[in-house]
Amino acid sequence: MINVAILGFGTVGSGVAEVLTGHERSIAQKTDDLVKLKYILDVRDFPDSPFAGCFVKDFARIESDPEVDIVVETIGGATVALDFTRRALEAGKSVVSSNKELVATHGYELTQLAREKGVCYLFEASVGGGIPILRPLSQCLAANEILEICGILNGTTNYILTRMIKAGLSFEQALKEAQDKGYAERDPSADVEGHDACRKICILSAIAFGRHIYPDQVPTEGIAKVTLADVDYADGAGKKIKLLGRAIREGDGRVCAYVAPHLVDSAHPLAGVEGVFNAISVRGDAIGEVMFYGQGAGKLPTASAVVADVMDIARNLGHRKALCWAPGGADAACGTRALKSRWYVRANAGAEQLRDALGEVKLLARSGAPGGEAACLSEAQLTQEELSGKLAGLDVCAAIRVLN
Amino acid sequence: MINVAILGFGTVGSGVAEVLTGHERSIAQKTDDLVKLKYILDVRDFPDSPFAGCFVKDFARIESDPEVDIVVETIGGATVALDFTRRALEAGKSVVSSNKELVATHGYELTQLAREKGVCYLFEASVGGGIPILRPLSQCLAANEILEICGILNGTTNYILTRMIKAGLSFEQALKEAQDKGYAERDPSADVEGHDACRKICILSAIAFGRHIYPDQVPTEGIAKVTLADVDYADGAGKKIKLLGRAIREGDGRVCAYVAPHLVDSAHPLAGVEGVFNAISVRGDAIGEVMFYGQGAGKLPTASAVVADVMDIARNLGHRKALCWAPGGADAACGTRALKSRWYVRANAGAEQLRDALGEVKLLARSGAPGGEAACLSEAQLTQEELSGKLAGLDVCAAIRVLN
Repeated sequence: MINVAILGFGTVGSGVAEVLTGHERSIAQKTDDLVKLKYILDVRDFPDSPFAGCFVKDFARIESDPEVDIVVETIGGATVALDFTRRALEAGKSVVSSNKELVATHGYELTQLAREKGVCYLFEASVGGGIPILRPLSQCLAANEILEICGILNGTTNYILTRMIKAGLSFEQALKEAQDKGYAERDPSADVEGHDACRKICILSAIAFGRHIYPDQVPTEGIAKVTLADVDYADGAGKKIKLLGRAIREGDGRVCAYVAPHLVDSAHPLAGVEGVFNAISVRGDAIGEVMFYGQGAGKLPTASAVVADVMDIARNLGHRKALCWAPGGADAACGTRALKSRWYVRANAGAEQLRDALGEVKLLARSGAPGGEAACLSEAQLTQEELSGKLAGLDVCAAIRVLN
Repeated sequence: MINVAILGFGTVGSGVAEVLTGHERSIAQKTDDLVKLKYILDVRDFPDSPFAGCFVKDFARIESDPEVDIVVETIGGATVALDFTRRALEAGKSVVSSNKELVATHGYELTQLAREKGVCYLFEASVGGGIPILRPLSQCLAANEILEICGILNGTTNYILTRMIKAGLSFEQALKEAQDKGYAERDPSADVEGHDACRKICILSAIAFGRHIYPDQVPTEGIAKVTLADVDYADGAGKKIKLLGRAIREGDGRVCAYVAPHLVDSAHPLAGVEGVFNAISVRGDAIGEVMFYGQGAGKLPTASAVVADVMDIARNLGHRKALCWAPGGADAACGTRALKSRWYVRANAGAEQLRDALGEVKLLARSGAPGGEAACLSEAQLTQEELSGKLAGLDVCAAIRVLN
């Protein structure tokens, strides 16, 4: 019998309890062992929960119980969760996590600790919710040199952009709607400003490219500045605006990772990913391009990914090879300084001024554009600095990269 | 050191040799062991091949060499390949295969044999070429009851249909073009008549639902009867015609698996899958819907999936849990007899006759339709038998299921 303790009884934690107990028989069949929920750690009381008998308030109970094989951490954040994860690993217990912040900031240390202790630290649910991505990336695509990862990694911002594109809502209206539907938090900054996507591209980069990339090495821009005018101009160019997390392996081995809105051609598979769905495209030297698509969040999808990690550990107790990577460092990432793109530019200027500044451009139109506004796509591939240089002196309202 | 023998030096076999040797260093890093190509079995001579020193003509050399740990079978078919696979497993060697015909017809027996011998029989490349699907399905989605699998499983037919839809080519023209480009075989029947997709849905069903489903239990219809008229009517209804392999778990545990063309709504993620690409959508009770997308065939994509299986075995030599399922039988599958769908119908008849026959319908139009032709979508969900009953006496040209 394999005993599990869940830390945190929020959305994901309660989902894990539900899936673990609701599927107990089929999980036992598939793992050749009984996987039992023994403890749930939460500061709150849940006297009416069907799991009422499992609740404890003191982590030491779990830490010191030799019967606990696997600890599921769904607390979030990188303070208490870090302390408990370290202590669980030190105590020789495997840990499964859905906590992207913790993995993005302390993943190297924690995977190393797990390796030393001969246990596992797995976190499939930390990226893409229920979408299988980390295991396919580390196992199924293992024979590839990964060249690039590019994905819609945050469902909240994709919902907002979709509603702007499809229903003509402003950013503020769409955000309000997402909050009313429970897709966005009351304080939406982690999603809207791109930090959530940033953490996920850090984790994907570590697994794909083999070194830790820290969030502060990843230039991150959110969607708060995207306007309906931009959405309309993009539509006129046959493109959609999507918030993308990208990580590109450069020739020198460094990783160019960043998060920013992009204009994506409508024919590109990522353009069709709507609402709260996520999709992650991976390009490898042998495989070409593959894409993984599904619900990037939500109680049961995320819980099912956590439980799959638990089952993997249960099935291979003592044998499973650790998931780990090399330490990070200033030379691991190179920022976006050298990254050239075509650009979408909207300015309070005349079309001729844009053409004079950027050379060959594709001018864009939208209905209802005020006089004195112009927008275009540059034909030339430019770095951000080159673009800024060329646009110096112009009253630029928006500059967004175009995904090649 | 882990020694590999490749059986068959065709497209996939030579790709495997290329990836194994070209990525030798990174493979060694990831598996903590050196993975060496020791033999290639082929009846032909390749004196100028960079692998010339590896070639043997007698399988017994490989079978009796205790240094060979893993045999890669890329021969195809279910005769010689079956014999060699059995003998390799009997000799205590793990086997990796890209051979969908063999897995679909003898997968149960071979996975059992592997289990008895304590070795592995893996075949990620047999479905979806390089797309990670079998491992995510068996591992990442393990905490789910799988409810349905639905996919574009054959790139050749998807290429043909895409060219009919996008370029207005007839089926015959598009097939000819696919042959000229090397996407279709000279004898295209295995692809065009749906047999290739049928084998793949059998393998997916076994892994998702836990019992072997044999190809002769899967009603299979190809695309040879799809005409440009149907493509045009579908377009008018905002739909695209796609050849789908589907497997649905019924309430009684039986599996309704079949292959047939379908009208797919343009907003559905499968509708946007074009050309030789494949995509497989999986619905689970916890995860909701996830989709896997990529190149379903081709030398290097397929080879990269084979090599990933080799690496998985190498990394976990002696420990990896077997992939296996329960035996098949007449009660495992239930055919499509009870499967209700909306239908697209085209007939040499008047619109009123279609309405009289089918009740509420959505009439469709296409430019250039000859007088006396009508087409519609039924509003009612009908079994194939119910549909035939209602259409009795009409001169029906086409009847295609609509994907809900």
